[in-house]
Order: sequence, then structure tokens, then C-alpha cells
Amino acid sequence: MTVSIGAKTEVLIEALPWIQQYEEKTFVVKYGGAAMVEEDLRETFAQDVTILKKIGIRMVIVHGGGREITEIAQKLGLSTRFVDGQRYTDEPMMEVVQMVLAGKTNKDIVARINQHDGEAVGLCGLDVHLLKARRQRPRQGDLGLVGEITEVNTEYLELLLGNGIMPVIAPIAVGTEGEVLNVNADIAAGAIASALASEKLVYLSDVPGVMSGTELIHSIDRPMARDLIESGVIGAGMVPKLRSAFNALESGVRKVHMIDGRVKHSLLLEIFTDEGVGTQIVSQPEERP
Amino acid sequence: MTVSIGAKTEVLIEALPWIQQYEEKTFVVKYGGAAMVEEDLRETFAQDVTILKKIGIRMVIVHGGGREITEIAQKLGLSTRFVDGQRYTDEPMMEVVQMVLAGKTNKDIVARINQHDGEAVGLCGLDVHLLKARRQRPRQGDLGLVGEITEVNTEYLELLLGNGIMPVIAPIAVGTEGEVLNVNADIAAGAIASALASEKLVYLSDVPGVMSGTELIHSIDRPMARDLIESGVIGAGMVPKLRSAFNALESGVRKVHMIDGRVKHSLLLEIFTDEGVGTQIVSQPEERP
Amino acid sequence: MTVSIGAKTEVLIEALPWIQQYEEKTFVVKYGGAAMVEEDLRETFAQDVTILKKIGIRMVIVHGGGREITEIAQKLGLSTRFVDGQRYTDEPMMEVVQMVLAGKTNKDIVARINQHDGEAVGLCGLDVHLLKARRQRPRQGDLGLVGEITEVNTEYLELLLGNGIMPVIAPIAVGTEGEVLNVNADIAAGAIASALASEKLVYLSDVPGVMSGTELIHSIDRPMARDLIESGVIGAGMVPKLRSAFNALESGVRKVHMIDGRVKHSLLLEIFTDEGVGTQIVSQPEERP
Amino acid sequence: MTVSIGAKTEVLIEALPWIQQYEEKTFVVKYGGAAMVEEDLRETFAQDVTILKKIGIRMVIVHGGGREITEIAQKLGLSTRFVDGQRYTDEPMMEVVQMVLAGKTNKDIVARINQHDGEAVGLCGLDVHLLKARRQRPRQGDLGLVGEITEVNTEYLELLLGNGIMPVIAPIAVGTEGEVLNVNADIAAGAIASALASEKLVYLSDVPGVMSGTELIHSIDRPMARDLIESGVIGAGMVPKLRSAFNALESGVRKVHMIDGRVKHSLLLEIFTDEGVGTQIVSQPEERP
Amino acid sequence: MTVSIGAKTEVLIEALPWIQQYEEKTFVVKYGGAAMVEEDLRETFAQDVTILKKIGIRMVIVHGGGREITEIAQKLGLSTRFVDGQRYTDEPMMEVVQMVLAGKTNKDIVARINQHDGEAVGLCGLDVHLLKARRQRPRQGDLGLVGEITEVNTEYLELLLGNGIMPVIAPIAVGTEGEVLNVNADIAAGAIASALASEKLVYLSDVPGVMSGTELIHSIDRPMARDLIESGVIGAGMVPKLRSAFNALESGVRKVHMIDGRVKHSLLLEIFTDEGVGTQIVSQPEERP
Amino acid sequence: MTVSIGAKTEVLIEALPWIQQYEEKTFVVKYGGAAMVEEDLRETFAQDVTILKKIGIRMVIVHGGGREITEIAQKLGLSTRFVDGQRYTDEPMMEVVQMVLAGKTNKDIVARINQHDGEAVGLCGLDVHLLKARRQRPRQGDLGLVGEITEVNTEYLELLLGNGIMPVIAPIAVGTEGEVLNVNADIAAGAIASALASEKLVYLSDVPGVMSGTELIHSIDRPMARDLIESGVIGAGMVPKLRSAFNALESGVRKVHMIDGRVKHSLLLEIFTDEGVGTQIVSQPEERP
Repeated sequence: MTVSIGAKTEVLIEALPWIQQYEEKTFVVKYGGAAMVEEDLRETFAQDVTILKKIGIRMVIVHGGGREITEIAQKLGLSTRFVDGQRYTDEPMMEVVQMVLAGKTNKDIVARINQHDGEAVGLCGLDVHLLKARRQRPRQGDLGLVGEITEVNTEYLELLLGNGIMPVIAPIAVGTEGEVLNVNADIAAGAIASALASEKLVYLSDVPGVMSGTELIHSIDRPMARDLIESGVIGAGMVPKLRSAFNALESGVRKVHMIDGRVKHSLLLEIFTDEGVGTQIVSQPEERP
Repeated sequence: MTVSIGAKTEVLIEALPWIQQYEEKTFVVKYGGAAMVEEDLRETFAQDVTILKKIGIRMVIVHGGGREITEIAQKLGLSTRFVDGQRYTDEPMMEVVQMVLAGKTNKDIVARINQHDGEAVGLCGLDVHLLKARRQRPRQGDLGLVGEITEVNTEYLELLLGNGIMPVIAPIAVGTEGEVLNVNADIAAGAIASALASEKLVYLSDVPGVMSGTELIHSIDRPMARDLIESGVIGAGMVPKLRSAFNALESGVRKVHMIDGRVKHSLLLEIFTDEGVGTQIVSQPEERP
Repeated sequence: MTVSIGAKTEVLIEALPWIQQYEEKTFVVKYGGAAMVEEDLRETFAQDVTILKKIGIRMVIVHGGGREITEIAQKLGLSTRFVDGQRYTDEPMMEVVQMVLAGKTNKDIVARINQHDGEAVGLCGLDVHLLKARRQRPRQGDLGLVGEITEVNTEYLELLLGNGIMPVIAPIAVGTEGEVLNVNADIAAGAIASALASEKLVYLSDVPGVMSGTELIHSIDRPMARDLIESGVIGAGMVPKLRSAFNALESGVRKVHMIDGRVKHSLLLEIFTDEGVGTQIVSQPEERP
Repeated sequence: MTVSIGAKTEVLIEALPWIQQYEEKTFVVKYGGAAMVEEDLRETFAQDVTILKKIGIRMVIVHGGGREITEIAQKLGLSTRFVDGQRYTDEPMMEVVQMVLAGKTNKDIVARINQHDGEAVGLCGLDVHLLKARRQRPRQGDLGLVGEITEVNTEYLELLLGNGIMPVIAPIAVGTEGEVLNVNADIAAGAIASALASEKLVYLSDVPGVMSGTELIHSIDRPMARDLIESGVIGAGMVPKLRSAFNALESGVRKVHMIDGRVKHSLLLEIFTDEGVGTQIVSQPEERP
Repeated sequence: MTVSIGAKTEVLIEALPWIQQYEEKTFVVKYGGAAMVEEDLRETFAQDVTILKKIGIRMVIVHGGGREITEIAQKLGLSTRFVDGQRYTDEPMMEVVQMVLAGKTNKDIVARINQHDGEAVGLCGLDVHLLKARRQRPRQGDLGLVGEITEVNTEYLELLLGNGIMPVIAPIAVGTEGEVLNVNADIAAGAIASALASEKLVYLSDVPGVMSGTELIHSIDRPMARDLIESGVIGAGMVPKLRSAFNALESGVRKVHMIDGRVKHSLLLEIFTDEGVGTQIVSQPEERP
Repeated sequence: MTVSIGAKTEVLIEALPWIQQYEEKTFVVKYGGAAMVEEDLRETFAQDVTILKKIGIRMVIVHGGGREITEIAQKLGLSTRFVDGQRYTDEPMMEVVQMVLAGKTNKDIVARINQHDGEAVGLCGLDVHLLKARRQRPRQGDLGLVGEITEVNTEYLELLLGNGIMPVIAPIAVGTEGEVLNVNADIAAGAIASALASEKLVYLSDVPGVMSGTELIHSIDRPMARDLIESGVIGAGMVPKLRSAFNALESGVRKVHMIDGRVKHSLLLEIFTDEGVGTQIVSQPEERP
């Protein structure tokens, strides 16, 4: 494609001011879905986070890994059961979760980013007790070794970020009795972003963003969200995601973004263009900058 | 103008890697010609150098100011005379040169950049003896109080640059007897760029760059320059400019650029696009990056 | 002159303790009058401020320049008009004020101090927005582009002072709309001294100090000043100067001095002798140290 | 047990001087064998390395994990084959090796040390390209994805050690094509100890040390080793271990120790008693300190 | 003596955790009695304080010196008189006290510690006005030039301690009129320990500690002390020592120890064994750690 | 005395430039003779060294103390014997020398300087092994415990000087066997000045300086000294002093001064007046500045 001089100038004038604004700021990216599975999307993701890190943004990646866990658990003869959308995790299953998330998924992501010279390091919540959690007690039933995060060791993350290293975090945590706990990756990303008082928390998933019918909402705030949920315009599936986004905003994250991981370089476009390509979620009504 | 998502991605992928590469590097820009006279070009120049400074480039501006000097000298009843293209400068004229360059042109540029929040400070060679010079002795005739730079006080420039301040320099110098000397702005820019071991020295002037006939040469090195000069393809007017560019390259500047100050934002386009919009001058044959 | 050993000892024992006390302290000197016009006084002034800087005092010079402005304005065909003792400044006049103060007077002082190796740098309020001002609205009439200082960029001054550089400041400021404003040098010196919480603010002018009839008052405080003004002993001409001195004292300056710029080295003598040679103005009754 | 006052004094006088000598020194421990399998030995190991870290020694752990790899590979239906004592590693096997070593063994060790508050962090050679390797080409046969270390990223290890963090390293490396390679843990420990110019490299294994028949050799140097090997006193099994120990000594490690991992607290006893409990290997003949 | 491996392990596991806990903590030791007189005790004392300093404890020694003062005073023809247990000190006696304490006792201790490479420096209260005191006015009689400490120059002590130097302090002070005053060494040690907010204040004297009849009390707190004093179990001689210990605890010292200077290495044993060898004095009831 | 304004200016203009030149420079003063004995000279000496320290000169005092040693030795029944002008020092005498020099003379000087707020600290060569020496072996006879300095612990002196503390040093040293040695104060001052690469080494004694007959020599260099010694103009008594001065100059001291300690404030006058009041000794012919 050939881009005209005029178009180039326009894009630069639009993008460059953001760079200064984001320097030394922290972005937490929840990485999952197609972007973590398809070969070319994995590649552009690794490329994008490396570019962002190199222009001075402190990048933190939190990943999921459900598919691979289920696959290997099955091969090892363990059956998977979900309770309210969360994996029931007994001790043998927890061993598999730890092994696959921390040993396979995590290190595969790290290896690919480092092929692009991204200086990533793979971590899980057991390392320097990065993530502490308590057992999650659902009102009904039992989830087994599933936890909710109570504390994030930001000192270690700050050490890495301050030295130009990109942490890639597998969402398992240490419990109050020293037991290993499985934690939800979306929620872990939110807890980490809050603890680091991040500039942005970005959810990469397999939808374009928050939709009003077939139309993408570019920017949404709490009152607007309430109205659209009440009027049924926003589907039930999006409700818990929006709730966790507003929680993060209340805990000190400045903006939450939901973007389409299936679009190549969507991360760059969301960050460096005024209109963005997904939905930005803010506390108060605000114009898209 | 509406730029497509694809085009935006392309421009960003092209531009972003340069940013990291230029961070903390020094660019010296010789500012003059139309870009210093026309209102809208003055405005986009101030905007561009501020953006460049804000993304971490250490910007230094060296300006000329011939037209304003002539104008005010005339009003004060002094006649202007040029010897070999250089202004003959007796003491009354030197007083006018100092007053206009350091008090009017320089501070006007500073004021405009600071309107864009560029944190500029105006200097001339008398400040902390920034520029020391010896009297220029042409083979024929006499130029009066005209000097050639022998020493640049880089310590002070480094202090300013290291503290995020943009020096804007009027090309007058202190002579060996303490007298004030007029120095050529192009040559002053080269001397300052060399003393700071700059990454880039950019000449903004009223031509598109080095031309081979009616075609712009994107990149030129010394052997190629020699051939084109010998074959008469490059006009005589460009020869001294090329010579001073090669001098700067030999003294430690990494690249010299000649770009068209009449094109808005040409500075940004030269720096952040692979092909550039003017001519880059390099020591050895090299592909345009 | 030959000074006896005994006299030398006495002067040293008197002077040396002051040195320690003033180290790393800031002195703001308002420079004007004869000391800025007569050749030998200019020379001893440059010598004195350099010595003071070299023994560790952080020197700041604020200068006026009325005579030169009037002279050049006249040559350029502009007529000068004063309103209540302040120059009426329309746009053409402001251009002349800026050009002369920042380009001629300022750089001439800088050049002379640097001939004594004083490491001075010339500044005006446009540089890094050093001085911000609002338009002065007199009760009667109109002063044009005349301002009163609202903010001093001390961060930049501290950077220079902390690196052993002596700022020499021309009293022009940037207005709220980005316009250039003329400000009174005496008042600018007071504002700068207050912003820097200076140890001393010294006014060099063409009178011996505050006089009680024909006798010099060595030290004066507010109650004493009030009495002498009421009883008519202190003339009306001195009243506004005293008022601005007391303002400076209230804003954090420790002492204000009014000394005779016509006496060679009066600056050194005021500072390093117990009795001083001018008038010191203090908040509370205090013995001359 | 009750220890007499006299005995306590003696032990203290013996142990305390070592502490000062070891402060801020680096110890690399190769962890494996029974000490990594039996519950109470795992516990005393975690306790010992934590104590050593807390008194100021910079501890680095490098672990093996053969048994667990074989076990899980088997469950996943992969058969294990050894070539010359090294595991033949094709791609599916390498995936298992990575997953088990980096996800299970490594994080289990980390979790246990952190239960004792040892501030450990689990790493493998993929993290920030900690370990770079080239494919090992045996003279005969093919080992598959097995590598020998060519570079250790000491900068990252120094960052962790300098901030009081204990790296626990799984011996897998990144190859020249970006492929993941299996490396021998003993050799990896030696390469890391050399790269860090460690004070000590300690091999914890299931033998008492180097034996001369049934008697433990407390200290051995190269000439002595040669004699004993030639005379057949030292068995063939020990020869490669001794060779790698001497290699480490030549590359800057000060001392190598071989101690019995089956004895509780053997690590502390070797380090804090003059006679030690295993074999120390030194370059030149030297008295046991 | 041969200590078994098991016993060694036990002592190390007991001692090592203390080391970490005491690093960079300050211990003030009052040195006197037999430990300062008998050759082999002097030697083990110098050895012990050097070991403690080398493992990172900030050691401060405060010494007495009664016997030597009396001896030399006698030779110089001055008679010694005690008032309520304190030496009556007129001017000639004060000269002797200063000369002997600061010139002989102090420098002898320093020299011996430095033979063990302990980097000690000898000080008295006159140096940088380390100890300021006011004249002690007993209710009855007159003590002459005897003072009680009102201020300790901790800045200087911190400078030395922070640079790995061990201050050895002779208990003389400067009075409010500049006169030299004799101060009680026990009380001086308490004042210095309080001023430095020491971890420990250790009194080395010629008794085993606080005794309940013939049995050593290992740990005592204020209520327990009161009971035992009231019931006459603790003898009157110990009462003032306990009082000054409780004063020190109230002023910020964490623990006071009274140990037997006649037992070799009692200092090490008290500090590095759980039970200790003397009496520890604490504010609140507390288990011996 | 009343000094005229003109005289004051002259003295200031003469003195002030020296201050800058001496800031952060080290001066070693050998203190002895009348200046150490007479009450008013002791007082002006303490005053002068305090002023010099306060204006930023790093002052080091080295003192003698012969008279007091002899006096107290006598009272203690020891007879004094001199060999070649040096005190014969057996063990009992060495104990007296240490006690008197380090405990009496040294601390008396310290106390007086500190009364003027000079922040002095008293030291001898035993402190942190400040001065190491070997036994002096004269060609004839035996001097006993007399040493010549082989090493000065400048690290400790630099620590004190860098923290604004003035070391006052008693000339006793530690020998190679740990024995205490008496060293000549003049030579000790030279060794210390050399080790610190001092700007000045000043000998305060009871003569006006180096005399040529009855006339004071203001400045002398080596060739001039040789001529005057050969021609007998300089008396034999001065020869060894000149020799040690030239030794110091060769070892890195910039200037040596011999001044009259009997003249009040001679130290200040030598340092802050161009002509000085004693003799300056330089390597090469040089004008008095």
C-alpha cells in the first residue's frame, strides 16, 4: 500500500503527542482468545508489545490458557468440570493448571516476545509471592482450589518495569495456607492494573468491543452503561466484563479498553489513534480525545 | 482527510521504531528562509520542534536573520554591503546585528516555541562564552567583525539539554580580544552539531534538497557527490553546502539532511518516514533505512 | 596605598566570617543608573559580581535600560511618552524595548561579566517563560503593553545557580495571551528576589541610600520608616522604594540594601564590612551586625 | 540435645568469621537427587538456602528434574530414550521437558522456599534470554534438541541478586534459531557459576563427596586428582564431575564443593565449619581453611 | 574439644538467624572490671567486638578506668577521695582524669582492638563536643567537676558507624562553661545507647548478672524486678544498676544485658545463643527468644 | 583602629580571590612553640583555624608537646635524655608520651578549638592505625621506641575532612609489631601533608621565617636555598627544616610556609595577603603571587 505524504503527516501529528503522554506509564494487557492461538496474530501481538515497550511504556501481560489446560488434563486422564463458568480445580487438576500455565503457555509467550527482543520474563503468583489470594467461597457448590487475589507484590513488578523488563504473568496465586490457587485471568489483570495504578488496562478478546446492537460504542461511562444495560441494548454477556472494568477504574486505573484481538495490530491502533478501534471505558462522560 | 485503518497501521509501524532510536539523541536544526518568515510555516515549525523535543529528542535550533538585520540597519541609517556573500560588519553594524539577532529574531522564535510549551531558551555566543571565534581573514578584502568558530561551550548546552530545555542560538560569537563577532549561521550550526556529536544536522531552506536535474536525490554520499559535481549535474550553488555537510560528517555528526522549509511539517516527515522528503547526506554509500 | 599589617588583620577578621555565612545564599542585584553607564563603574561592577559569585554566592542580576531604549526608539522614529513615570508602550515600542533590552543592554552586561570569567548568561522573561505577567491596569489612563509579574520560573533559575551560572535578566515578561510585556525593573528585581527567597536584594542607584536630611541612615526598620516618613524627614521620592523593599521582606527576602552605585566597589563594601556603606532595610529593629 | 557452653563458643568462633567473608558473595547450588525428592530434606534445604540468603549471601539455585519429566512423559504417551546418559529430546519431548521443568519442578521449589520467606523467583533460560545455547552435536548419534550454553545473561541475575531475590533456574535454553533446548543441569550450574564469578559452586548429590576407597577426601586439587584417577582410586563415575569442577575453577569460580544431599543441613555444615562435610575442589594444593 | 556434627548443626541453626536480625543494629558495650584488666580477657574482648563489628553490628564501646586514674594520681601526689561512690574531682584531679582516660586507657583499648583489625577510633566527650554535660549538684556535699550528660552528638557517631568505624569513648564531657567534666561511665553508656536508639546496651562487669539468691535470673522485667527488690531477693547493690537499665529501655534502647566479664567470650554467647549467659532486662514480660 | 574605606576595599580585593582558590583545599599546620603555650596566642590560633575551616579550607593540625611530656615525666620520676635532639624513649617513657600527647595536649587543643565551634576531633596514630611507622635506627646509639612514618591512613582523614571535621593529630604511631612509637612532629606533619597532597604545609614556630641575615626571605626555591646555604647566609639550624620542606614539595605538597607563631593571626595574614608575613618555600623560582 502506498500512503500519501499528507496522510503520513496526519497520522504522525495524531500519534506523536500520545507517545510523550504514555512515556513511563504502565499498561496492563489481558491477553487471550484468538490472539493467543492463531500463528500470525501471536506474531503481531509480540511485535506490538515490543514496540510499545521500546517507546517507553511499561508493559505488563497477564494471560489465560484454558484451552491448553483442558487439552493436557484430558491426555493425563483428568476430566474437566465447570461450575458457574469457572473450572472446578481439585489438587490433581491444580497441578496440571500450574504446570501448563506457568511452564507451557507462559514460557511460550515469553519466548515469542523475546524473539522480537522484548525482554520479557515469565512469572506466576508463586514467584516472590507475587499474587496472594484467599479461597473463593461461592454461595453454592464448591470450586476447589480457586482463589481471589488479596495482594499484589508491586515492589517486584516495579523493580522489573524500572529496569526495562516486561513481566508476563500466569494467573495462579499462593493461598493463606501456602496452597496454590487458580485465579481468573480477567480478574487477575484487573487486580494487577489496580495495584500498579496503571494508565490503561486493555482486554484483548474475540469481540470488537462493547456493542450497541451492531454498532461499536467508542466510549462508554458508567451512567451510559447503566442506561444501555437497563434498556437491553448491551447483552448480558458483556455485563460482568463492564462491572470489572468499572471496578478497576475505581481502584485507580485511568482507562479500560476492550479491543478486538482478531484484528492485527489492534493494540497499536487503539493506543495511537484518536478514535481508537475498540471501546474505551471511563468513569465520567468524556470525549474521545 | 480520512486515513484508512490500514494506512494508519502502516504509518505507525514505520514511524514507531524511529522514536526509540532517536530518544536522547541530539538534533541540530538550522532554521531560516521561508520557514522563518511566513506565519503558518513559523507556526508548524514551532509545533514540530516541540513534538520532537517531547518525544525525547534533544533539539537545538540555530537561526539566521539576514532580512531583519538589513531592514533595521536601514532604518537606523546604516548601509549594508556584502563581500563574497557575507555581510561586511563594522562596529556600528555589529551592534545592530547583535541587537536584532539576539534581541528580536532570537526572542521571537523562543516566544513562539514557548507558546507551544516547548521550553526554549534564547542564547547567543556571548552567554557563558558559548561560541568562541577568531577573526575571519579572507584572502581578498576585509569582512570586518566576522569570525569563524573555534570553540563551542558544550558543557552549558549539555546542562540545558539534560534538563529538557531547548537552546535557540543566535550566531554571534566572542572573539579572542573579547570583541563581538558575526558568524555565518550555516557554519555555526555545523560547528555546534559537531561539538555535540549530534545524531542529525538538518538544514531547513528554500529548496527541496539536492537535485539531480529536476529530480530530488534521496540519499547521497561523498563519491556520488563528487561524480555528480564533476559531471555538472549538481549546480555550483549547492557545492559549498555539500562541502560543509561532509565536514560535519567527518567531525562526528551521523547524518546531515537538507529539507524543504517551504513544505509544512517537512521536519517530521523527514525524520519519521523511511523514505524521507529531502536529501540525506552520509559518509559512505548506505541504503535509505 | 599601603595598608598596615594591623589594618589588614582587622579587615580580614571582619570580613571572613561573612563569607561562610553567605555561601550558597542568593543575592539579587538591581543594576542601573551611573553604574551601568560609566565605563570604569561598569568595569568594577563586573569585577565585583564575579568575585562574589566565585566565593560561592549565587548572584542574580536584574537590569533596567531606559536610556538606550529611548535613544534607539528615537532613531527609529518612535516618540517616547511617560504615564505616571512609566513608559507608554504600544506594539512598535514594545518591539524596540524587547530588541534593545534583550539584545543590546542585556548582552553587553553579559559580555563584560564574562570578560572577567563570571559565567553569566543573559535571559529575558520570554525564555522558558521565566517571567509571567498580567496587563497592568492603572486607575487612570492606559500604559499599553506594561505588566506586573505574577509568576517567576524559579526552577530554571535554580538550575543555572546550582550549576555556577549567573543569570542576568532583562525585565520583559510574557502575558496571559502570549503577548510580550514591559515590566518595571525595580519591581521585577523584588519579585525575583522574593520567588528565590533571597538572602539579599540590593538596589544599586545614584543616591547614597536612605537619608535623614544630609545624613545616611545605616539601618532602618518599618516602625522607624513610618515615623521618619510621617515627620517628613524622608523625602517623598524614597517612599515607593521603601514600600517595595518592605514588600520584598514580607515575601521572604532577608534583607534589602540601597547602595550608591556611583561609589566604586560599593557592593563589596556593603557586604563585607560590619557598618556597610549604604542603608540596610530590615523587618524588625536590629543592630547592624 | 544439649550443647555445652564451651562447645557453643567453639562453634561460634569457628563459624562467625566465615559470615563476614561470604557477605555479598555469590553461591550457586546445583540441587538434585534425594534432597529434591524426600519431604524432610526438601524442607531443610528450603530452610538452609533461606538462612544463607538472609545472612547476606547471594544464592542461586539450579535444579534438575529427570524423574518428573520421565513420569509425565510416560503418562502423555511419550517414551524416553537416553543416548550416552543424556535424554534424547525430540520436539514433543522438549515441550514436556519445558512444561515440567519450568512449570512444575521449578515452581514447586520456589513455592517451598517462599514458604520460608526466601524471596525466590523461578526462571528458565527463555526468560530475558537468560541462557543462550547452541545445538550439541555428539560425535555419534543425535540427541535432538539438546544444547550447550554459550551465554548467560548475568545482567538480569545481578539485578535480582542486588535486590535480595533468589533466582531458581530450570536448565532449558534458547537456541540460535530461537528453538528451545534441553541442557544438562550440572553443566548449566557450572556455566552460571562461572558467568557470575561465584565464590562457590556446590553440587548436592547422593554421594558423600569424592571418595578414596571408603574414605572421604576433604580437599582435592588438580595434581592430586590426576594421581588418584590414574591409580584407579577414584572411580570412573566421578571423573566427568571432577572435570566440570576444574573447568569452573578455571573460569573464575573460587571453590567447588561436592556434598551429600542426603544429610540434613549438609549445606550449612560445609559452609560454616572449618573441616566441612564433603569434598572441596580447588585449583592449587591448599589447606582446608 | 571435639564438637559433634549434630551439635554444630544445632548451634548454627540457633545462631545464624540472629545475625540477620542484628545487621546494621547498634550495640553499646560498657567495658570495665576484670575484662579490662586481665591480659587474656582483654584479648578475647578485642577479638569478640571485632567479630561482632565484622558481621555488620555497629559496635560502640564506652569504658571506665578508675584503677589507673587512682594509680597515676597517686604517683603525681594527688590524693583520691570518694563522695557517695563518686570520685571528688577538683581541677588538678580533672587534668589527671582527662590525661589517663583519654590518653592511656582509651588509646590502649583502641590499640588492642586495632591489632585485631577492628578499625576502632578513640574519642572523648571533648571531640566535636561529643558529650555535653551540666555540673552534677548532689543534695549533700560537692563532687567538684562531675557532670551529668545532657546531649550526645550522635551525628558524629553515626558518621563513624556508617563508615565501619568502631568508636571507643572515654567518659569525660564538656560543661556549659566549656569546662571539662568527669562523668560516670555506666551512666554515659546508658545516655549514648539511648541517644543512638541502640538495639542493645550490654554491661560487662564482675558479676554473673542479676541473681535471685544463688541463681542467675535469665530475663527480668520491671514488675518482676519490683517484686524481687521488695521481697529482698535482689540485693541493694544491684538496685541502681537496674534503675539505669530501665531508664535506658524507656529512652529507646530495646534490650539491656548484664553479663559476666570474667567469662571468656561471654559477649558472643549472650548474643548468639537463645538462652544467653547473663541477665536480659526488658520492659514488658517476654520469653527469652 | 579605624581603617579607611579605601583601605578596606584594597584588602578585600586582595583577599577575596584567594578564598575561591583555597576552597576545598587541604592545609596542614604544624602547631608548636609559643603559639601553643601563651594564653592569648592559643586563643587567636583557635580562632584563626576555625575561620579558615569555615570558609571551606580543609584544616589539619599536627602538634608537638615536648615541654609537657618532660614536665609530667619528671613528676612521675622518669628522667629525660635526648640523643641527637630526639627524646630517648623506653617503654615507661613511651607510656608517658602517649598519655600526655594523646590525653592532655591533644585534647586541650581540641577543647579550645571547639569552644570556637571549630568541630575538631583529637586523634593519634593508633586510631584506625592512622599512622604506621617502622623503628628508627640511627647510625649511632639507640633512640628506643622512636619511629619514622611509613603509611598514613588518608581514607579516615578524608572521611573527617569531607564531613567538615578538623583532625588534630598527636604524633605517635603504631609499629610493625603493634608497639607504640614516638615520632617527630615536624616530620609527621610533612608525611601527612604529602599523603593528603595538601595545598599548603605551614610550620608555625618561634622564628619569623627563613632569614638572610636580619632580613626575612619572602620566597625561596631550591636553587636559591642551595646558594644561600653554601654561602653561609642561612644558618645551620634552618637547614634540616628546609630539607624537610623540599621533601614535602617533592611528594606533592604545593607550597610550604614558615611563619612566626609569636605574631597574632600570622596564619591569616600569610594566607590572605599577597606578600605574606613569613617565608614561602616553592620548588621552582616563582613570584610571590
